[in-house]
Parts: sequence; C-alpha cells; structure tokens
Amino acid sequence: MKHFTGVADVTDLPELVKLARELKAHPQAHQALGQNKTLVMLFFNPSLRTRLSSEKAALNLGMQVISMNADQGWNLEFADGAIMNANTAEHVKEAAAVISQYADIIGLRSFPGLKDRELDYQDQVMQAFCRYAQVPVVSLESATRHPLQSLADVITIEEHKRKPRPKVVLSWAPHPRALPQAVPNSFVEWMRQADVDLVITHPEGYELAPEFVGDTPVVYNQAEALSGADFVYVKNWSSYQNYGQILTQDPAWTMTEAKMALTDQGKFMHCLPVRRNVVVADEVLDGPRSLVIAQANNRTFAAQAVLHQLLSQKHG
Amino acid sequence: MKHFTGVADVTDLPELVKLARELKAHPQAHQALGQNKTLVMLFFNPSLRTRLSSEKAALNLGMQVISMNADQGWNLEFADGAIMNANTAEHVKEAAAVISQYADIIGLRSFPGLKDRELDYQDQVMQAFCRYAQVPVVSLESATRHPLQSLADVITIEEHKRKPRPKVVLSWAPHPRALPQAVPNSFVEWMRQADVDLVITHPEGYELAPEFVGDTPVVYNQAEALSGADFVYVKNWSSYQNYGQILTQDPAWTMTEAKMALTDQGKFMHCLPVRRNVVVADEVLDGPRSLVIAQANNRTFAAQAVLHQLLSQKHG
Amino acid sequence: MKHFTGVADVTDLPELVKLARELKAHPQAHQALGQNKTLVMLFFNPSLRTRLSSEKAALNLGMQVISMNADQGWNLEFADGAIMNANTAEHVKEAAAVISQYADIIGLRSFPGLKDRELDYQDQVMQAFCRYAQVPVVSLESATRHPLQSLADVITIEEHKRKPRPKVVLSWAPHPRALPQAVPNSFVEWMRQADVDLVITHPEGYELAPEFVGDTPVVYNQAEALSGADFVYVKNWSSYQNYGQILTQDPAWTMTEAKMALTDQGKFMHCLPVRRNVVVADEVLDGPRSLVIAQANNRTFAAQAVLHQLLSQKHG
Repeated sequence: MKHFTGVADVTDLPELVKLARELKAHPQAHQALGQNKTLVMLFFNPSLRTRLSSEKAALNLGMQVISMNADQGWNLEFADGAIMNANTAEHVKEAAAVISQYADIIGLRSFPGLKDRELDYQDQVMQAFCRYAQVPVVSLESATRHPLQSLADVITIEEHKRKPRPKVVLSWAPHPRALPQAVPNSFVEWMRQADVDLVITHPEGYELAPEFVGDTPVVYNQAEALSGADFVYVKNWSSYQNYGQILTQDPAWTMTEAKMALTDQGKFMHCLPVRRNVVVADEVLDGPRSLVIAQANNRTFAAQAVLHQLLSQKHG
Repeated sequence: MKHFTGVADVTDLPELVKLARELKAHPQAHQALGQNKTLVMLFFNPSLRTRLSSEKAALNLGMQVISMNADQGWNLEFADGAIMNANTAEHVKEAAAVISQYADIIGLRSFPGLKDRELDYQDQVMQAFCRYAQVPVVSLESATRHPLQSLADVITIEEHKRKPRPKVVLSWAPHPRALPQAVPNSFVEWMRQADVDLVITHPEGYELAPEFVGDTPVVYNQAEALSGADFVYVKNWSSYQNYGQILTQDPAWTMTEAKMALTDQGKFMHCLPVRRNVVVADEVLDGPRSLVIAQANNRTFAAQAVLHQLLSQKHG
Repeated sequence: MKHFTGVADVTDLPELVKLARELKAHPQAHQALGQNKTLVMLFFNPSLRTRLSSEKAALNLGMQVISMNADQGWNLEFADGAIMNANTAEHVKEAAAVISQYADIIGLRSFPGLKDRELDYQDQVMQAFCRYAQVPVVSLESATRHPLQSLADVITIEEHKRKPRPKVVLSWAPHPRALPQAVPNSFVEWMRQADVDLVITHPEGYELAPEFVGDTPVVYNQAEALSGADFVYVKNWSSYQNYGQILTQDPAWTMTEAKMALTDQGKFMHCLPVRRNVVVADEVLDGPRSLVIAQANNRTFAAQAVLHQLLSQKHG
C-alpha cells in the first residue's frame, strides 16, 4: 500500500479487517511501531470524528500527531506551468514535498465544491498530494471517497453479522442541504469487495456514478429493497446526474421503525452526523437496532489498521 | 466525582486543595496515571489560559491531549424530538456519545449568550454533555460557572493566607463590555465552601443570582466592604436582574492603592485577562499585593488535581 | 542566549550550525533534554512550515508542544499606563507572564502591518514578549526578522558549498502582493556573520533598511550581481523607502535558467512558499539547481538546534 485513498489501495481486505479487530482488542500493543514517527493531518475542510479518531489511532500506535486546519488562506495551485500572479500562493508540488520533510505519513481532507462534476471527480487535491508527496498519504475524506469511514463500516458489519453473507442495503435519505457523494460512493466500492449482497435504493435521479455502482442492483422501491435486509445503511447524497442538486426532500424516504420492520431484524447504520427525524426517526436511532456509535468507535481502529500497515511497510 | 462542573461535584474540598498542592510540588510524579488516556477539549468559545493550563496539567499526568475549536460550523441540536431540517446538523446525543469513543475525559467550554437569562442558566451545552457523555466531563467554563478558575483561587488563598479564616471581598469593577456572571457566581459558590468570611460589594442592580449568593453579606459601600479584607477579588460582570446589561461604568469602582489601603494588607486577585486602569490601577497590578500571576500558575494544578481524581476513580 | 530573535542572540554561529548538523544526523538522540518541558507556540499570523518544523523539532527533543492561533480576538495592549476601555482586552505584561507559567519556551510569530514603518520596525510584539516573559522567547518570524529561516539557510549553504568562501547573491523578485522585509533583512544579517561574500541586487527603490545592509555591496544590475555566484537567494519584498509599496512587478527580475547560467553552477534558494513563473521559472525550481526542499528540511534542525541550546542553558 503506497497511499490509502480507496479500496483499490488495499491488497487484502479480510486481512486488514482482521488487523483492525486485533488492534481493537489491544489498542496499545504496538506503540514501538510509531515511535518518533509523525502523522501530519491537513484539513482543507472541517472535521470532528475523523480528526479525533485518526489522532487517537496514531497516539495508540505511539506516533506524534500534528493537526492543521488549512481551510483558510492557503490557496494551492494545481496546474502545471501556471504563472502564479493571481490568487494561488503555493504550488502543490512544493506544498506536498515540504510537508513530507516533517511527516512520516500525511493525512488529508478535502471536500468537493459540488459545482463542477468533472473537476470534483478528478479528486485534484488528493491526487496531487499522492503524486508529489514523498511519504504515504491517507485520505481523511476526499471529493469522491471516504475510505476510513467505509473500512469502519466493513469492520462493524463483520462484528454484527449473523449470517456468512448478509444482505446490505444502501438507502438514500432526504436532507435540507446538498451533500457530497463521497460516503455512498465509498460504501458501495468497499461493500463490493466484502462478502455481502449489496442493494442500492434511492429516488430516480439519484443514481451514483457508474464506475462506483458497477453491477450492483439498484431498486427504486425502498420497501422492496429493504425486504430481508440484515444491515440498512442510510445516507443522503446530492444528485450525480444533475450534479450537486437536491431533487427531492420527500419525507417518505426517511428511515422509520415501520420500514425497518421489513428487514430481517436489520441493523441501522449511518456515518454521522445525522439529522434526526429527517434522515432517520428517533425511534430507530435510539433503539436497539442502531449501530451508529459502534461505527464511530470503529473509526479509530480503521485508522489504526491503515497507519499500522503503512508504518510496517516503512520498517520492512 | 462523576463530572466536574461546580463545587457541588467535589466531595472533599480541603482534600482536593491538598492534592493540588502536592501535585504542584511534584508535577510529574504521577505520569503513569494518565498513560494512554486521552483528554479531548472542545472549545465552543475561545480560550487561552484555560486551554494552556489544562493541556499542561494533562501532559503532567502523562495524558494525551486533543484540543478542538468547535466555535464555528458545529451547530448542535439540544431539543428532544426535534425535526432537524433547519440549521442544526447534529444532536448532542450523538455528539457526546461519539466523542466519548475517543476520549477518557471530555473538557468543554461554552459561554452564555447574555440575551436570554433562563436559557443561559439552564447551562444547556454543559448539562447535555454531562447527560449524554459516557465519560467524565470537566467544565472549562460554562454559561454559569468557571470551576477550575475558582479551585485555582481557593488554592491561591490557601497558599497566601495569614490567618486561619481570612476575610475575602468580591468587588465588582467597571468594564466597557458586557461580561458573563460565570466567574463571580463560581467564586462565591466555592468561597462559601471554603474556610473564609466572604463579603460581596457592587453597585445596586448588580446582584448575582440568589442561588449563588445565598446568605453571603452584600454591601453596596465598597470602602465599608474592603475594611480589614485579607483578599480582594476584583471582577466585572453584567447585570443578572437587567440581564446582560451594563448599568454603569463608574470609575469610582476601579480598584486603586487608596482603596487597598483600607484592607488589612490585603492581596489583590483577578482571574485575568484584566483591563488596566479600568478594572484596576497599574499601581495595584504592578505592586507587591498582586497575586494574579500566582493565580494563573495555580490553574495548572487545579486542573491537574481534578484530572487526577477522575483518572484515579476510573482506575479504582 | 536569553531569547532567539536575531543573529545578535547567537554567541557562536559556527557552533550552532555544527550542532544543527549533528542533530540532523541523529534527530532523536537528545530526547531526555526536553522531557517534561513545554514549547508553547503563539501564532498571531498563520504558519505552515514554521509551525510543522518547529513542532517536529521540539518533539524530536522529547518536548511537549502546544500550538495556538492568536490571530483573532486577542487584542493585546502594549502601551504603558494605557486606560484599557476600548479594544484591547489584555496587556502584554500579563499575557507574557501568564504564558510563562505554562511554557518552558515560548515561540511567537507576528507579522508587520506594512502601513507604519516606524511602528513595524519597533517589532513591538516580539520585543514586548521578550521583555515580560519569564522564559526564553523564540521568534517564529517577527515584523523585521525570520531568524529560524536564516539559520536554516546558513546550514543549507554550509552543506552545499563547494568553496571555503562562496559568493551568495540575494536577488529581488517580482510579486503581486506587498510582502514584509523580514526574510531578506534576516538573510542579510545572518550572511554577514557567515563565511560568504554577499551581494544584494534589486531594482532602485527596493533598498533594505541601512542597519541590515551595512556595507554589503548593492548592485542594481542583476546580471552583473549573478556573475560567478555559488548561491542565488531569490525573494520578493516590498519597498522600505516607500514603505510597504509595490514599485514594480517587472518580469525581467524573475529568475530563469538563462540568468542562472551566469553563475558558477550556482544553486537556487528560496524560503517558500514561492509563486512559480513570477518569482522563479519552473525550469529552475524543478531542476537540479534547486535547494528549496533541502532548505525546508533544514528548518527542523535550525529550530532543534535553537531549542537544544535554550534547554541546555536551563539545565546548566
């Protein structure tokens, strides 16, 4: 694993999940591994649970952590050959190379603008850092993917599944703001590599990018999709086709106990933060089906497994 | 002690002060206690000395510290059953539970709005975190109290008193901005548990909330109050009755050497930051009576004693 | 060394450079020195490489680090006797003394306003902290100097020189924004203490302050200055005479391969961030002459040498 930006960077997913669960059982068992190693985390967008869980993961491994908000005043240039006499003050070539002088691993968060689909799906910030950094780069959510969240989700499903191959449903939910597709893209990409049967359900017009969906069944009837589900992953996203648009806020898509009753004692999942009684009813979130806090907890061990693997390689 | 939000959480104040003074004598004597324990500090309002002293205290105990400014972009919902389709993006139920996954102790700062007295005195943020967090919560100043400051003040008085039961005067001072009542509320609450004679003096209209004042003597004549004082704690606050209002900026209430001369070689105290020649004259602040830097120094050991007690319980 | 704010604070420059290079060879060899010592870094202006490199340096020495942005909401008073009933909320006397309670060393960054030359050149924030702090203060760039950058530059030249006494040229470059004179001031001040032949070249009107330039040759013809140079340090600055003004953005001053060809296989240096194809052409920055990443790397060991010296004194 050179960088960690998506499931394609993982050579053996079951092994990574196994490592995460071992680290969860003994969080501080490998503190020598990170000794005198520094994780520098750059947040081009704000972060709460990603920052806390990643920092905790690094500290568990004995690493030093430096977190920086780069959300204001750091206008990077990405174009080759640019004459930088306007707003951009530093080229990503220098930025990535310089931070590599102080970091053993770079963590990076950068959201999409949701205005220009082509630009967003180039995942410019993440790709440029991967290209120019001299140390491994870990995605803390990019314009198109949120791989540490997805790995935590895989771990959570592995911990709670009651069948060898559970049915997992990704169910779109309404939301008053236009949100990125990074979490659902990533969830689909990881589930397709996991030992599950994945079904996606959403209103027409909310189809995710084809390169993420592949041959995953898409069902527009939510009730039909939920039938017999073991895990229901609820999430809003804005339209990919009508890029960045909110096409509907239809409350009929809100997850409720009545809908969860269609599942096979299905568990409820969400990456948080979640808007109560818009995305999901209180009754579900506060009930025994909800795995959201377990998911949040597994964020630490997802990050720790990735850092562990990157540090082990460096030592190898 | 489940949480630390006010003097009511302290079961044995003299013992806590004794612990703080022992830690001050040997700051790094208990580094094993905090090993692999994480203090997450969330600042809904800015902080300088509270952040530095609390972080130093935690590091002295061998803890890991993660500090986060939550002052922008994190709009929490507090109402049960809310339909979150407007400005609030996360319910405090999830926020507190999630942070509890990454923290062994949560530190929290949240100021009052000074618009709505009833709302402020519910101390909503602090109370909600105490309710929903799965780990101890330490107040780094709430809408109504600043207990780590008050504990530092108790320690400072204990160190500098020349009588078994000194006279302590809380004296209001003018200020160009409307300030919270958290520091004076808290000071009164703690002094009432300490072995001192407390007198409060302020212009009429600046009466603090009755539940804090209790039967403490209130004297409107500053000179009369100061007579024979061993410690003079000067502080501005906005009106509780005419909530959040500035009723006067009368410079006659500024603390001066002439007024300090009325005391029994009284010492001057203030929590800082202080506006020179508005709250207190240079001559007092720069003279031998001033304990303000000693108070600031004791902030570390107040925090360290509280963290020590919370960590010891967890180990017990 | 009481504080570190400029080359005048260094008693033996060759020894400091030697120490830095030893620390670079064995970065973690002195971790006991910083044990339980705290570096508090206050940024009145934003910072990327200074923050990362200084934090890394402190961690290498086993220190604890607390970084704070003080760029908003902390309005300090500097005037003696001020009646603080307006915008300033804390006097630097208290601020510096209080932070000294929590820090063993204070790092401080504060830029000039570029409006009032006399005020800027008093270096008010840095000087006031040096006066009132009870612990050593390290400049992380002040209104007039950037000594950690200059020390890193001295180290870099020492590492790459091919002659006992190389020729070093400081060459002004165009830039769309008005920048401080801190980096060139500082570079000149340090080079004058190093074993090099320094020449300064810039358009007329860009003369640096006489107290920094001293008897250093100033040549207005860039080509003439570059002839036979071993190191070319390129940097923009705004005018000192027409204080803070941009007098020209003439692209003829941009550094190119054609100009570098006038040197004696000269190396290119810049403190970064750098505007490509405005300050310097891609061909130079991306070519084998460029030392910019090596300079950035040496920032860590410059800071580490300074911290090491300050900590050693405290132990002595």
